[in-house]
Amino acid sequence: MLADTAEKIKSMEVRGAGRIAREAVKALRDHATSLQAATVAEFREGMEEAASVLVSTRPTAVSLPNAIHSVMATLRRDFPSVGSARGEFLQACDSFVAASLLAVKKIGEIGARHIRDGDVLMTHCNSEAALACMLEAWRIGRDFSVFATEVRPRNQGLLTIGTLEEAGIPTNFIVDSAARYFMNEVDLVIVGADAISVNGAVVNKIGTSQIALAAHEARTRVMVAAETYKFAPRTILGEFIRIEERDPAEVLPPDIAGKFRHVRVRNPAFDVTPAEYVDLIVTEAGAIPPQMAYIVIRDILGWDIGDFMHGMPGNGREG
Amino acid sequence: MLADTAEKIKSMEVRGAGRIAREAVKALRDHATSLQAATVAEFREGMEEAASVLVSTRPTAVSLPNAIHSVMATLRRDFPSVGSARGEFLQACDSFVAASLLAVKKIGEIGARHIRDGDVLMTHCNSEAALACMLEAWRIGRDFSVFATEVRPRNQGLLTIGTLEEAGIPTNFIVDSAARYFMNEVDLVIVGADAISVNGAVVNKIGTSQIALAAHEARTRVMVAAETYKFAPRTILGEFIRIEERDPAEVLPPDIAGKFRHVRVRNPAFDVTPAEYVDLIVTEAGAIPPQMAYIVIRDILGWDIGDFMHGMPGNGREG
Amino acid sequence: MLADTAEKIKSMEVRGAGRIAREAVKALRDHATSLQAATVAEFREGMEEAASVLVSTRPTAVSLPNAIHSVMATLRRDFPSVGSARGEFLQACDSFVAASLLAVKKIGEIGARHIRDGDVLMTHCNSEAALACMLEAWRIGRDFSVFATEVRPRNQGLLTIGTLEEAGIPTNFIVDSAARYFMNEVDLVIVGADAISVNGAVVNKIGTSQIALAAHEARTRVMVAAETYKFAPRTILGEFIRIEERDPAEVLPPDIAGKFRHVRVRNPAFDVTPAEYVDLIVTEAGAIPPQMAYIVIRDILGWDIGDFMHGMPGNGREG
Amino acid sequence: MLADTAEKIKSMEVRGAGRIAREAVKALRDHATSLQAATVAEFREGMEEAASVLVSTRPTAVSLPNAIHSVMATLRRDFPSVGSARGEFLQACDSFVAASLLAVKKIGEIGARHIRDGDVLMTHCNSEAALACMLEAWRIGRDFSVFATEVRPRNQGLLTIGTLEEAGIPTNFIVDSAARYFMNEVDLVIVGADAISVNGAVVNKIGTSQIALAAHEARTRVMVAAETYKFAPRTILGEFIRIEERDPAEVLPPDIAGKFRHVRVRNPAFDVTPAEYVDLIVTEAGAIPPQMAYIVIRDILGWDIGDFMHGMPGNGREG
Amino acid sequence: MLADTAEKIKSMEVRGAGRIAREAVKALRDHATSLQAATVAEFREGMEEAASVLVSTRPTAVSLPNAIHSVMATLRRDFPSVGSARGEFLQACDSFVAASLLAVKKIGEIGARHIRDGDVLMTHCNSEAALACMLEAWRIGRDFSVFATEVRPRNQGLLTIGTLEEAGIPTNFIVDSAARYFMNEVDLVIVGADAISVNGAVVNKIGTSQIALAAHEARTRVMVAAETYKFAPRTILGEFIRIEERDPAEVLPPDIAGKFRHVRVRNPAFDVTPAEYVDLIVTEAGAIPPQMAYIVIRDILGWDIGDFMHGMPGNGREG
Amino acid sequence: MLADTAEKIKSMEVRGAGRIAREAVKALRDHATSLQAATVAEFREGMEEAASVLVSTRPTAVSLPNAIHSVMATLRRDFPSVGSARGEFLQACDSFVAASLLAVKKIGEIGARHIRDGDVLMTHCNSEAALACMLEAWRIGRDFSVFATEVRPRNQGLLTIGTLEEAGIPTNFIVDSAARYFMNEVDLVIVGADAISVNGAVVNKIGTSQIALAAHEARTRVMVAAETYKFAPRTILGEFIRIEERDPAEVLPPDIAGKFRHVRVRNPAFDVTPAEYVDLIVTEAGAIPPQMAYIVIRDILGWDIGDFMHGMPGNGREG
Repeated sequence: MLADTAEKIKSMEVRGAGRIAREAVKALRDHATSLQAATVAEFREGMEEAASVLVSTRPTAVSLPNAIHSVMATLRRDFPSVGSARGEFLQACDSFVAASLLAVKKIGEIGARHIRDGDVLMTHCNSEAALACMLEAWRIGRDFSVFATEVRPRNQGLLTIGTLEEAGIPTNFIVDSAARYFMNEVDLVIVGADAISVNGAVVNKIGTSQIALAAHEARTRVMVAAETYKFAPRTILGEFIRIEERDPAEVLPPDIAGKFRHVRVRNPAFDVTPAEYVDLIVTEAGAIPPQMAYIVIRDILGWDIGDFMHGMPGNGREG
Repeated sequence: MLADTAEKIKSMEVRGAGRIAREAVKALRDHATSLQAATVAEFREGMEEAASVLVSTRPTAVSLPNAIHSVMATLRRDFPSVGSARGEFLQACDSFVAASLLAVKKIGEIGARHIRDGDVLMTHCNSEAALACMLEAWRIGRDFSVFATEVRPRNQGLLTIGTLEEAGIPTNFIVDSAARYFMNEVDLVIVGADAISVNGAVVNKIGTSQIALAAHEARTRVMVAAETYKFAPRTILGEFIRIEERDPAEVLPPDIAGKFRHVRVRNPAFDVTPAEYVDLIVTEAGAIPPQMAYIVIRDILGWDIGDFMHGMPGNGREG
Repeated sequence: MLADTAEKIKSMEVRGAGRIAREAVKALRDHATSLQAATVAEFREGMEEAASVLVSTRPTAVSLPNAIHSVMATLRRDFPSVGSARGEFLQACDSFVAASLLAVKKIGEIGARHIRDGDVLMTHCNSEAALACMLEAWRIGRDFSVFATEVRPRNQGLLTIGTLEEAGIPTNFIVDSAARYFMNEVDLVIVGADAISVNGAVVNKIGTSQIALAAHEARTRVMVAAETYKFAPRTILGEFIRIEERDPAEVLPPDIAGKFRHVRVRNPAFDVTPAEYVDLIVTEAGAIPPQMAYIVIRDILGWDIGDFMHGMPGNGREG
Repeated sequence: MLADTAEKIKSMEVRGAGRIAREAVKALRDHATSLQAATVAEFREGMEEAASVLVSTRPTAVSLPNAIHSVMATLRRDFPSVGSARGEFLQACDSFVAASLLAVKKIGEIGARHIRDGDVLMTHCNSEAALACMLEAWRIGRDFSVFATEVRPRNQGLLTIGTLEEAGIPTNFIVDSAARYFMNEVDLVIVGADAISVNGAVVNKIGTSQIALAAHEARTRVMVAAETYKFAPRTILGEFIRIEERDPAEVLPPDIAGKFRHVRVRNPAFDVTPAEYVDLIVTEAGAIPPQMAYIVIRDILGWDIGDFMHGMPGNGREG
Repeated sequence: MLADTAEKIKSMEVRGAGRIAREAVKALRDHATSLQAATVAEFREGMEEAASVLVSTRPTAVSLPNAIHSVMATLRRDFPSVGSARGEFLQACDSFVAASLLAVKKIGEIGARHIRDGDVLMTHCNSEAALACMLEAWRIGRDFSVFATEVRPRNQGLLTIGTLEEAGIPTNFIVDSAARYFMNEVDLVIVGADAISVNGAVVNKIGTSQIALAAHEARTRVMVAAETYKFAPRTILGEFIRIEERDPAEVLPPDIAGKFRHVRVRNPAFDVTPAEYVDLIVTEAGAIPPQMAYIVIRDILGWDIGDFMHGMPGNGREG
Repeated sequence: MLADTAEKIKSMEVRGAGRIAREAVKALRDHATSLQAATVAEFREGMEEAASVLVSTRPTAVSLPNAIHSVMATLRRDFPSVGSARGEFLQACDSFVAASLLAVKKIGEIGARHIRDGDVLMTHCNSEAALACMLEAWRIGRDFSVFATEVRPRNQGLLTIGTLEEAGIPTNFIVDSAARYFMNEVDLVIVGADAISVNGAVVNKIGTSQIALAAHEARTRVMVAAETYKFAPRTILGEFIRIEERDPAEVLPPDIAGKFRHVRVRNPAFDVTPAEYVDLIVTEAGAIPPQMAYIVIRDILGWDIGDFMHGMPGNGREG
């Protein structure tokens, strides 16, 4: 069951930073329900093992460790019995999932206000939060159209146009290379994020930074829709957000690739958009400029700059 | 036979501006061989009909009308017999093909000098002239590697890595979206051109302008390899180079596309890279900055600015 | 009396975000003095009606609703009698006016430190806070000169040169179109603001963004002088700052405009300068970079990001 | 009569580089008709005196000296009689006027091809050549709309909207400061030129460079429509194009200006748009990039670079 | 002894913002040990005199007054005897020095994470904090090389290559003018700071801003390593960080300079790098974007924005 | 004697592209005078040997091979006797030197027109042509001042301030790193060139591109003063202009350098300024934009683009 979810996340059957976070927490919840343990310590150990398995599936998505870390924190307290530990843990999981879904809804409400009648939008990949903004804007009667990219190599663009089709939003489907060609017609780019660094750099699906650059060149606004758990606390400590390089087979089938001796397929799953190409990040806690990432990390996610002053945390203990 | 070639050009079985030009001229040559005609006038008329068929196959590639115009010009003279007209025409066709092949060779020699040991190159699409530079550089012993893009929707990148593989040049194959991700490692972008405007703007495979923009952002040089017949004389008269929008089925199979009522596939085949993102154009007549396009049109292709002063040429007669 | 003030604000007889805020509060104060009411509830209702009238006069100036909201907040408490409610309200109005005047003085003191001997300044429109910086710098003996623009269509530049003339500051008066022409001689642009968005974008008199762009092109610093009540809290929720489009007659007299059937006069009163063109915002609470707008909203104006987490405020209740 | 025309040019009753050139030539023509002279030398001298008067009226417009120089060149030859000199001169004047009008027509035809259905244009000042492009595009059925600026201090925008109104072209009239505000909606800026330097810099009505800068920022194309006699040969010798600073009374009526002791009105009539902000210059000899200015000067206007090699011309003799 | 240290700081025998701060505090400590005083007041007065002497030695380095201010704050409390005052003061000095050294260590640990295998670095001047990042990265096994500049006129680059040599880090030594030449090979620029302004502008050794500009042009990251006491609180009040102009003799020996009557040597010791050219500032309290400078000043250095609201502090008392 | 000159050029005792060209030609002249030869062929051979020695001294300066090539061309003709060959050759040498000196004079006259009263100039290195512009401007009464850089590692700035001192021109002497610090005060940068590429890129003393970049950032004009023989014809064939890397001992004395095992001194003598940072190139044949380099090569230096079409010249024969 847990292995199942881990596999689905790894193979991208489950994808999108928000969905990954929720599915991982649900898998932990299921695991907690059935886990046999004689003592609280044993229970805790069993859960920690399970958590490790999930964390290791996708190195770039910070939502995954953030989510797991958030629910696992419950188990650090003292419990009189395994039953009470299990009970509190299940409740923490339910709260996380509910808050995550609410976050998307709030982002949709805030982001929708940035879409005006007559606007032409462009989106890349298949972000739940970015789509929430469009769906909410359409629901409240805004009249606009969308350019959606194909998103090679996994073609998530097909999922995106499926959602837009269902809502009846007029959409243009283009190859990734055509983004700059149409950019002068676009009023607003809306994308999601897999992670956001302390300096406001946005890690998202490969190709995002290219679109943001073309938007900047054409004075088109770029809005990132992202839950606050996408912000990466450990970037304060200088940690890089590691860019996952995925299986070459996603790009070139092994039977074709096998014929080449001098050709190597490179398949980075994400790229980094610098803060200067982003106008606004819409979170469930409000719209902010990318430079405010540090404040989100400190004041929403609860990492205080003071912690670092007295004994640097995280040296070895985490990540 | 002629219809055959026309179809192959249309369907992109024959592709690349140089190859299209040569194939079209060869088709005309074949047509001239077999064309039955009682008088020179009749012969001329028959050839003109054939020429029209070919010209209409691809609206963007200026090499096509330039090539056809160049050989058809032979028939404007007076001829004593159909035989002599045919003879001269066949010779003009052979000359054109030979000159075109020589041009690619010369471009290769000139362009190869811009590739240094240790360089990392990036190319997009499958340009004969651009590849000639790399192959010649490899032949004379330069040590370098190449990033080649996939080139959706027709995947011409596969042809490119095939050629590089055969030569033994170390190559990385990436999706189009990953160009900016790797750009900081790249020293030189080499691409071909389908057409070049009088103001130095380069029309090439969709996605080229995005790569050139990312190169400019990273202070990476951009070199365009193009035969002089890619320069578009009529842009002096304000004509736009029309960007061909090809069959949506290239992007999305009709059976999938058919399920969407609100989604329209847009499939522009080319985009326009402004002169400011191009460092150098390598032609068979030497390396020049893009702003010299006018001089190529006037001094190599033979359109004199003076012509325009006394009665504007080309109003209706051509194009 | 209240209607009078409302009319003066609407017609721009009273203008400038600070002056509008103070005049509106004074009008409310006068209204409170004379308002007949049997109960506290009745008094409150009467005042709320008056507040609505004033708020609706100028849609862009956030200082107006911020000011009214600030004094009206007093009436949310319980009062034993109409007299005590009235008393507290009058006092709140007096405090607001005093603080507003003090803010301009402080901005002047801080901003003056950015003006050096020999500097050439440029200003646009007629900002009380921007002028305060120049007047204070002149008072403490700094030697500088100013370029002041005409500010079509309402020619507020004439008011500005009137103030500078009175102080004896050497001034050049130019049409709005000449800003870039002289920009290379300018060391510092100082303008005011009508509103500042959470991402540091500055809404100010039409033409400001053009001047800031020209300053950025020439490496000339741009300083915005603005009281903290110009920062717009609701932009955190994604609200746009609505750009008021004023009467065409300000641009073209109706008797002339009437002769045109195909010509439409467009008269936006403000434009938006992106944060990247602003070096510093001087407020009465200190000089900050534009990206700190969120902090001003949260820590000075008192909107905490936590509020948004537990039930999104402002849905329907306001704006 | 000649004094009359000189006065009209000076006071800008006659304005626009093309119209000034033609009116000046017509005035010379009239003068030649009535000028009493005993010998050819005396006739020549009288004409040269008249030419000087006209040349000195507007220092920036190079079309004026170019035009006068062009017709006066006739008189350098030998003539058997005053009558024959006069005859040839009158004919040269007629030819110049005809060619000038034809040039505008040709520019209109070439420039119109750059206007597409659905385009939004922006223009500044009242350029005959720029308007010719729009009128011709409208005549051949293109569907577009125009933003026209007011053009302080002389309000030439009113003339422009008059012409557009007459043609029935949908037009928006805005103050000069609003150009950047609307730029993101604009597809093409079309302006005229008063002079073009050897390095492609365009001298045109004050405010043009600001609009071109805003266009560049938003990836909007900028097209300059200009007859070849607007190119300034002497810039090859390092001569600056002198920017005329006109009467302060155009900006501020003397009765108002008189009240200010510390305020000086600065009224430059033109500014300089660098070549990097101009995509294309449309001349009657074809569309060219601004960097081709040197070629226009050498090959159309007939200044050969070789002249400079053997004894630098123009030192004292002209200008 | 105190005079000695003051002299060494002035003459740059002691240099680097961190070292200056520590040496100044040590000098005060020594002074406190030997200072004869009958009363606490007398002791305090004597120490304040000593503090003034040190503060005046280098006008730009904010670390100097920040450090002195920090230890001198101890003496504001009441003390029963000179002995107890002296005791507390000595302890404060020791703490400051220890914290300063610890800060450099922490910066090294955080900054080292930004250096990857294969990276090429560039550094300018001789920053303790910047070197700490490199040394720590080398210690933990990262494989990289460094370009170090000469740093005219005081040639601090020699000290830098001395340190790098000792550690065995492969280094290239270049003249300051060669920074842009090699920039395309560089992956990361690391420099220190002498002061950081509230808007994130970085004051550092003359030449830094030029290197940062060249890095920005080439999409090379720029990291600033700086202890939090380099942030300048008083820039919130509009104070400029004064750029020290040092003795011309550092640039040109007096015997040579003396021969020139028309030549003046200008020797600014620092320049200002705008925040837009800086990707990240690594402090001992974590890595932050430059726009967070205000937060560091308020939350680490303890200047609250609220202080400014109620009576502007620092008018006269300090600085 | 010849070896002497070769040594002086190599060691930079003779420096500056113009002076090198003239000295090399003079050395050849002297060599021709004394060269003993029985036949014209022997004379020719002896001269060619001498030419080779000189050409190899400095790889970057194209003026050197251009100059030598120009005079050596004389010997390609047939001569009846050694005496007549020698005679013609000596005359060709004298003509070259005279033309070179005249070129500098003409450049001075043209360039001086770009210096206005009140201008602040900046120059880098010690360019004869750049200085000629300043000296001529001063001679005709222009009032301006100059910033001159030190020019590490050879300190040519001392020569420059020597020349400016002698003329009495007010000058500021700064280290190379201070260029950006003062750039906002500068109106015009004037530098020379060692070579100019076909795409307008300017090869000049290391540091030039950094100053041009800083000028571009601040909207300061950049003017290059260069004789036409600085343009490099072979760049049309794709040849790179090889950047000479000179003796490390120029940067670091061997006794110091010897102590470092991990430090390598890199000493490139030149860098490349891209055309987009250059406003104008002043040659003796007129002022042109950098993109006109091709025209100079073709029309002044006499390399016709047609040559390349029929058999590519220069493969092996030269360079």
